[in-house]
Amino acid sequence: MSTAAPRTAGPDHLWTVDEHLDDILSTVRPLEPIELNLLDAQGCVLVEDITVPVSLPPFDNSSMDGYAVRVADVAGASEAYPAALEVVGDVAAGQSELLHVGPGQAARIMTGAPLPPGAETVVPVEWTDGGLGEGPVTGMRARSLAPEAAGGQVLVYRPAGAGAHVRAQGSDVKAGDRALEAGTVLGPPQISLLAAIGRGTVRVRPRPRVVVMSTGSELVQPDEELRPGQIYDSNSYALTAAARDAGAIAYRVGAVADDADTLRDAIEDQLVRADLMVTTGGVSVGAYDVVKEALSYAGDEDEPGSGVEFRRLAMQPGKPQGFGSIGPDHTPLLALPGNPVSSYVSFELFVRPAIRTLMGLPDVHRPRTRATLTADEPLTSPKGRRQFLRGRYADGKVTPVGGAGSHLVAALARANALIVVPEDTESVAPGTDVEVVLLG
Amino acid sequence: MSTAAPRTAGPDHLWTVDEHLDDILSTVRPLEPIELNLLDAQGCVLVEDITVPVSLPPFDNSSMDGYAVRVADVAGASEAYPAALEVVGDVAAGQSELLHVGPGQAARIMTGAPLPPGAETVVPVEWTDGGLGEGPVTGMRARSLAPEAAGGQVLVYRPAGAGAHVRAQGSDVKAGDRALEAGTVLGPPQISLLAAIGRGTVRVRPRPRVVVMSTGSELVQPDEELRPGQIYDSNSYALTAAARDAGAIAYRVGAVADDADTLRDAIEDQLVRADLMVTTGGVSVGAYDVVKEALSYAGDEDEPGSGVEFRRLAMQPGKPQGFGSIGPDHTPLLALPGNPVSSYVSFELFVRPAIRTLMGLPDVHRPRTRATLTADEPLTSPKGRRQFLRGRYADGKVTPVGGAGSHLVAALARANALIVVPEDTESVAPGTDVEVVLLG
Repeated sequence: MSTAAPRTAGPDHLWTVDEHLDDILSTVRPLEPIELNLLDAQGCVLVEDITVPVSLPPFDNSSMDGYAVRVADVAGASEAYPAALEVVGDVAAGQSELLHVGPGQAARIMTGAPLPPGAETVVPVEWTDGGLGEGPVTGMRARSLAPEAAGGQVLVYRPAGAGAHVRAQGSDVKAGDRALEAGTVLGPPQISLLAAIGRGTVRVRPRPRVVVMSTGSELVQPDEELRPGQIYDSNSYALTAAARDAGAIAYRVGAVADDADTLRDAIEDQLVRADLMVTTGGVSVGAYDVVKEALSYAGDEDEPGSGVEFRRLAMQPGKPQGFGSIGPDHTPLLALPGNPVSSYVSFELFVRPAIRTLMGLPDVHRPRTRATLTADEPLTSPKGRRQFLRGRYADGKVTPVGGAGSHLVAALARANALIVVPEDTESVAPGTDVEVVLLG
Repeated sequence: MSTAAPRTAGPDHLWTVDEHLDDILSTVRPLEPIELNLLDAQGCVLVEDITVPVSLPPFDNSSMDGYAVRVADVAGASEAYPAALEVVGDVAAGQSELLHVGPGQAARIMTGAPLPPGAETVVPVEWTDGGLGEGPVTGMRARSLAPEAAGGQVLVYRPAGAGAHVRAQGSDVKAGDRALEAGTVLGPPQISLLAAIGRGTVRVRPRPRVVVMSTGSELVQPDEELRPGQIYDSNSYALTAAARDAGAIAYRVGAVADDADTLRDAIEDQLVRADLMVTTGGVSVGAYDVVKEALSYAGDEDEPGSGVEFRRLAMQPGKPQGFGSIGPDHTPLLALPGNPVSSYVSFELFVRPAIRTLMGLPDVHRPRTRATLTADEPLTSPKGRRQFLRGRYADGKVTPVGGAGSHLVAALARANALIVVPEDTESVAPGTDVEVVLLG
């Protein structure tokens, strides 16, 4: 990827997609780590190396329901010549006061229960008569129904070597081992390990709080009545959903009217709960592009790195874009164009990587692949602009859905991929191998 | 997949993995649909066909910032011979009272604004002098800074054909079109479309509420002190995280002691918020296996389909399993074994598909693929049992991590796949092509 163009590139610089992305990714920093409860840390990135404080299992324990015995007492046992042992009691999981198993004795033991002193091995209950004297059994009767089975005599029909059906202390992990390394993303199996070694909280980068705000005096909320000249606000819904999908905690702010003061107030109100601000609309060259107008005041000129820059990208859709930071904490802000398809494509290419960078994730981009273009006619693309067409990908092939128009939100809803047409390509014939961004 | 074994198969029947799964999937039914707000429906399955109530765009509108004009007035325009037109005012997005554009006139128009009566086309502002009289411009000055630009004269330097830079009414979708079909999973682009056509709520199958309960008197919670014979409860954390990952709203209930009455009370308490109950532990052949004991009472024998059946599966890990329904609503319950790896593997194979069936999702299973086994020595597997070994998959190859022991939770945390060894295979040589379940 190329180096970001200097921020002083000037208003006439036409930014490449990569320059804009590099500028964002070299500016946005991972969030400061915090200590979170284990289940609140799901999907987050660990920032500490985790060392095992206590060996797992913490003690030798039985891997079967059966009888804890001495090896010598069952050495020659068979169905014809079973070993008869005195049952001295039960050892259940969680029991701390243990019986002692002497010569000629057995303790009935449950899966996970500590191997009692004196015992050297475990014979599964299926290798015994379960104390009933009627040949091999398939299980034990419940303690509550047959308390007498914790005593009496048991016949053992098969021998067992030392340590058989015993999980040795530390055979899973040993105290001092590295359990997980900093940088690990915490999914269910990692959460399982952390809980197993007794960690109730962990230090991770939190999910970023993303505020999504659409702008435009023409926007009304779904389920309201549409008057002449109005359209429904879809961007705030789509991008809030997309931000969550990327891993963020997202707050949707309904459409804000095209008035610079109103917008500035709305943004300043929201800053307190934002690690990242995303706006849609008002970034182009029109006389009512209030995001551009409002944010040109929001930067403090005495603070380096503050302020939002509006630029033109060599890209379709998504030519007008804004990026910078606002407010006392230099909260990053991405100002996307207002067309639903433009804003969605811009989100996928720029906002999603920014969110995942804030999370400290190792891989911030959507996966890409190559696919064979399936189409009735060649795709056309404007020279000098990188085009992202909506497509449907399956089995190594991709088919465009809808046209190039940035308002074709119905086609977007059928797409699962973006077809990338490079800047220097004006026509792509069917059958050509093309780059595809998989929207997952 | 084979047909489920009859529920009356008897206690000695050794169930195959497929028989058990078929029994679960043929019993669990998708949840009843409810009407949800759009963003609450993210990830859910639509149960209604959605028809477009109003065409998109709802009116002809400009795709550029520029000037709305008549075609004839700019027909011969060039930089040498520009067309000079009278600017009659601004048309901004959201404006409902429109100017009329007569011969020799132009209205300054913003992206998304309705094409005013009389105008036939739009010339982008970059093709004009923007009213400044100094050649082509790159944009408009903000209305608030230069209100006079809504009047005066504009020079147009290029012609534009009828309908150029105009998005025609209904060019995206037309009223009466099918927007989305029942069965669609609602991701960000589908939410975008629904909002765009004015749908604030939709009818979907809700996310199932899953209660996860671990059992065992040996279990203590992470961050508490471990006394002799005790281990940390990891299953309730791991499976709560896994249930969320599968799409559920998951409630973790801390470990319940091995006492049938206590457990029965705990389950009955939780039923009110459960669409699915998952327990771990207490399902084997021991004398303290209280899940088995408690749930043998919970079914109402007068109600067909009520009650939980405990069975042995031809599977490693995960041999003992319970499945059935409990309570007045016949809430499905899966009782998993207590070893952390056994319970996690059982979750992936049986609970995750059950959750996704409750959601009505089209694809309930983890993806599977084939991979070449990379290992130092052959894998061994017990005859007659389908083994699921933890492995690390990448680029068509899979390497086992840890051993076959069901307590190896440290290895599980490094795995991203399960290696499937069929029932009739006892040894798998390195280099063999094996089936792999991708844990995503």
